[in-house]
Parts: sequence; C-alpha cells; structure tokens
Amino acid sequence: MKLATLKSTTSKSARDGELIVVSRDLRRALRVPHIAATLQQAVEAWDELSPRLNDVYQALNEGKADEAFDLDMQTLHSPLPRTYHWADGSAYLNHVQLVRQARNAEMPETFWRDPLMYQGGGDSFLGPYDDIEAISEDHGIDFEGEIAVITDDVPMAVTPEQAADHIKLIMLVNDVSLRGLIPGELAKGFGFFQAKPASSFSPICVTPDELGDAWQDGRVHLPLTVHLNGEKFGEPEAGPDMIFNFPQLVAHAARTRHLGAGAVVGSGTVSNPDANGGPGKPITDGGVGYSCLAEVRMVEKILHGDSRTPFMRFGDRVRIEMFDRDGTSIFGAIDQQVVKYNS
Amino acid sequence: MKLATLKSTTSKSARDGELIVVSRDLRRALRVPHIAATLQQAVEAWDELSPRLNDVYQALNEGKADEAFDLDMQTLHSPLPRTYHWADGSAYLNHVQLVRQARNAEMPETFWRDPLMYQGGGDSFLGPYDDIEAISEDHGIDFEGEIAVITDDVPMAVTPEQAADHIKLIMLVNDVSLRGLIPGELAKGFGFFQAKPASSFSPICVTPDELGDAWQDGRVHLPLTVHLNGEKFGEPEAGPDMIFNFPQLVAHAARTRHLGAGAVVGSGTVSNPDANGGPGKPITDGGVGYSCLAEVRMVEKILHGDSRTPFMRFGDRVRIEMFDRDGTSIFGAIDQQVVKYNS
Repeated sequence: MKLATLKSTTSKSARDGELIVVSRDLRRALRVPHIAATLQQAVEAWDELSPRLNDVYQALNEGKADEAFDLDMQTLHSPLPRTYHWADGSAYLNHVQLVRQARNAEMPETFWRDPLMYQGGGDSFLGPYDDIEAISEDHGIDFEGEIAVITDDVPMAVTPEQAADHIKLIMLVNDVSLRGLIPGELAKGFGFFQAKPASSFSPICVTPDELGDAWQDGRVHLPLTVHLNGEKFGEPEAGPDMIFNFPQLVAHAARTRHLGAGAVVGSGTVSNPDANGGPGKPITDGGVGYSCLAEVRMVEKILHGDSRTPFMRFGDRVRIEMFDRDGTSIFGAIDQQVVKYNS
Repeated sequence: MKLATLKSTTSKSARDGELIVVSRDLRRALRVPHIAATLQQAVEAWDELSPRLNDVYQALNEGKADEAFDLDMQTLHSPLPRTYHWADGSAYLNHVQLVRQARNAEMPETFWRDPLMYQGGGDSFLGPYDDIEAISEDHGIDFEGEIAVITDDVPMAVTPEQAADHIKLIMLVNDVSLRGLIPGELAKGFGFFQAKPASSFSPICVTPDELGDAWQDGRVHLPLTVHLNGEKFGEPEAGPDMIFNFPQLVAHAARTRHLGAGAVVGSGTVSNPDANGGPGKPITDGGVGYSCLAEVRMVEKILHGDSRTPFMRFGDRVRIEMFDRDGTSIFGAIDQQVVKYNS
C-alpha cells in the first residue's frame, strides 16, 4: 500500500494535511476522509484502519475507484507533516568512520554494538518540494539522503524482533544538516540542535510488502539515487552496509520509553565503502558516489589533504529518490532548492 | 488564566485529553469543547481563542460558570500530553559547573554566551501523578525540577525580544533522567536519548500574567519546592541564577528552524550556588537544597570525595511544586513514584 498527504489550505487541516491513498504507479490517488483524515490518525489505529485503506488501494490499482484523481506530486507534503517523535540513527558506520578518519580520530569499537541516534525536532517538516530556507551559506548547508520508517505504538523495552512488527511504513528522508554548526554543538556535549533544521520526506510512504524481496532483514536492499543540480551524485546501496537494521534502531529508541504511534526512525546517511574497503569513489570515478556532501569532502580531505567540493549555495538543488529493480520510482522524489531565508 | 488537560478514556481524545479552564485557586474547572477540544488546538489559534478562554476563566473565578465542577487533580494529565517539539535548556549554569567540577573539568567560557539545549522526545509525556516506570535501579533514576514555557508558532531566527511575545503559558517539569546512561550517551557525541525517558509536567499551566511581579525579565522569580519521600529536599530560587531567560532559550531553539505551536522549552534543573559562591548546601544544613539528586551527589563528591545520597529506588516518591509569596500553589504538584517496569 502507498500513502501520501495532500497539502491543505483550510485552517482545520493545514498543519497535518489530508491523507490520500496512492496507486502503485504513483499516477492516481484518492481521498479517504471516511477512513482517516490524516496519516497520524491512520497510524494511531493502524490494525483497524489499514485493512480498509488497503481495500481502497486495491480498487485504485484495478482502476475501480470512481473518485480517484490524477496525482500531482507538487501538491504533496511530507507523509507526516509533523510528528511527535523523530529519531535519526547513524547506522551506516562507513559514514561515521570517514568523519572520524578525516579528523584523525579512531571510531570506538562500541559503535559496532550500540547505535548512534539523535533526537530531532518533529514539529515542522518541509514538504518534498519545499525550498530549504537557510540563514547563511556559511552554515555549511548539506543534504543527507536516508531511509526512515514510521511505527505504531511501540512499548518500552521491546526486543528488535518485537520492534519489527511495529514498522508500518517506509519513506525517504532529506535530513538537512548545517555542517558549520555541528562542531560547536557537539563540543557542548548535548548533541545536535541548530545544526539539524527541518527535515523533509519523500512524497510517498509505502508498507514494507511494497518493496518485495528488497525488504529483507529489516533493511531496504536497493540503491538510493541522489542528484545535485541535475548531475548524478550518488547511488549507494542502502542494504548491505547498514550495520543496525530498522528493528534494532526502533528497539534502541524504545529502550527506556514508549514510542507513540507516528514515531519516525531514520537510518542515517546511506554510505558505502569502496569495493576495496577504502573510501567510496565519486560517480565520475566509477564509484557509487555519496548521499551527502560532507562525505565527498571527507574523502577529498583523506585523499588530497583538503576538501574541494563546496557545501550547498543558494539556488542549488538536491533530488533524492529510489527506484525498484525495474527502474520505477517507489516513493516519488524529494526535490528541493536552497534559498536564503528572509525573516 | 490557568489551563489543564483532563485524562480521557474515550478513544478519540485518549492521546491528547480534554482541555479545561481552571480557577485561580485550583478548586473549580470547566470543559470548553465549544472553544477548543485540546490545549494543542488552543495554542495553534491562540490569538483567536485565548480571549474566549479568558472570559470563561473570569466567570469561573467569579463563581458564575454554571457547568463548573470541583477539580480533582488526580484526573489530570500533563497540560500537553504530547507535543511536536520538546527542547530542554540547561540555563542554571551552577548545575553545569557542579557537574564539571565533580569530574575535574573546566566549564568552557562560551557556556556563558551560548545556551546548552537538548532535543527531547515529546510523544508520550507522563501525567503529573503517573508512576515513573523504569527498567532498573542501576540506571541511576533521578528527577529534575524545572520550569518550562509553551509557545505559539515561532518564526525562524527571531530575536529574544520577538521570542518573548511567543511565550503563552508556563508550567513545571520533572525531566526524569537516567544518570547511569548519560556518560555512555554523551561519549558517543549525539547527546541524550535513552538517558532522558518520558518527562512529566505540572497539572496546571498558566499565562505569564498569573505570576504577577514574579514574572520578570523572562524568568520566574519564585522558589521551586521539591520533596523527596515527604522530606523537603530543595527550594532553590528559580529567578536570579537562570543565566539565559526564556526568550533567549526560545530564540536559541528557533535559530535555524520554525517552531510549531505547542513547542515546549524548558529551563533545565533549577540550581543555586551557596550564598558564599560555593556549592549549594542541603536544606538540613541551612541551604536551599537541590532540585535533582545528581546535584547533591556532586556536592558530596566535591566536599567528601564520594557521593553518599543514592539515586531513586523503586517506591521512592518525588513532589515538585511552586508557591506564590502567599503560600498558594500556582501550578498544582507533580507527585510521582518510581516503579519497576514490567514489559
């Protein structure tokens, strides 16, 4: 099943949008106010409502949904325009190792057993086509291509095996990051805050079964495709190098607290080492490239002594999407331009 | 104006409860579904709805509200049972200095200019009388008595002066902390996560004008009273030692992102140095005591070489409240027992 959220201009639903069911080919959609007004409502009563949503989905795919309309991706918000819990892991340890290597620091051995995860702000996500408003290019504006899952209610202290059953939907993320603010914030010891402004998500979220064989071991075994200003920048494989799978990440988030339905848990930046185990190569050098600028800059620093690729400038555009093995877009694309914020 | 949220058992409002207006003396209350079903709805349209809520409040105080009922504090949830944004500062630098001093580390000079703040999980707050469920006493279970504000929509990059106008409500917090998990999490560099399980808030939240002269310079100039197992444990003054005021904390949280209405921003553990500038003394030694166990343990370590006061055990109870200069409770009390969580 594929779901999405229409942006809405009526004051009643402006903050959460309107839930729609989307056809498998992303061409047609249907409003479902008689089932759930918002995606948040749907995940809060998922066991009861998802079979009814799925009936609509089947009818839509079979061309039997009378009220269906042609889907215009530009009308969509992130599937959850806001959430009560946004927790982002950093499960591709290749990314973490590169960060450390670039500053000559060892990665602690415990990182292989204990996931990195930060708590993000969930109150005002960007839509998948919304501009990324930034105050200054000096903040080191970067994208991070990731995958995330949406859960229903997760009890405290679940095992990863139990957590797996609470993963209801999957989507892509652009975890916008302000690299210039990270060192100062991490030095304070309280984690990211200003360095992680509003994230955005793919216009479509899908149930795990939509991924078929590509959803295995709690991971998405497909490449994540990233374009920067129209040039392919990366297509790293999201599966094999994800050291902690999504059930493990959800269990980590729930270790000492209950997670409320609609919790979003992210994978961290998708990242592959090179086939020889060294730093990944750019697309132009025959590698799989990257899903964030920080990584190519770290690789440049390791190889050449300095970073050459700049962070994003006002007017730069990033596009993040994922195709199935037949080349069909699964989630639609995140496609955003960076603009100067005028307060 | 004083507002609160009734716990609700109907499925429709179980997660957000029912907004009520509470009389100044906390004795009487009134449902207001014709104005706003939940506090979240009220803060999302505050300019429009707060005058109507205030009319109810005046009638209630004058004994003219026909549908009013006697308020039973035990029926209340935290004012916002969940929120899209929970950001907690650490504005009482005396607390931070003690933490550092106890481990022989200097506090960076920048801490006087740049607030410490962490992003918390807002999806499942505890009610003010709910048990604190914990997996293990070995986690170092602690309370933190704090003050917090609720904002309406705050635009990105507001100044502290502008942020002041977005502070709509004030309440108390118990920022439950698992001290045993903090060193490991901070060492990873991503901030608190498992070490900060669900927080709870005072049953009543109030508009700043309710504090009269005690609300000055964006601070609450009253002592915070904390009891541990029925013994007074602390009554530190919340005003003078709060190095960053609430407008500064809100502006810090909003520096690179918009804050959605209902954002909760906390002060951090209320903490006073001793009159001679040294570590604060316990109540039993004539001091103002503390609003968390970690602090008395740090003081003990500094003075005696080791910490003597234990963290909370299953069955221990903490009570956090604030009285006006006439001895009347402003926000009602947070009063919670620690119990073992059975998954």
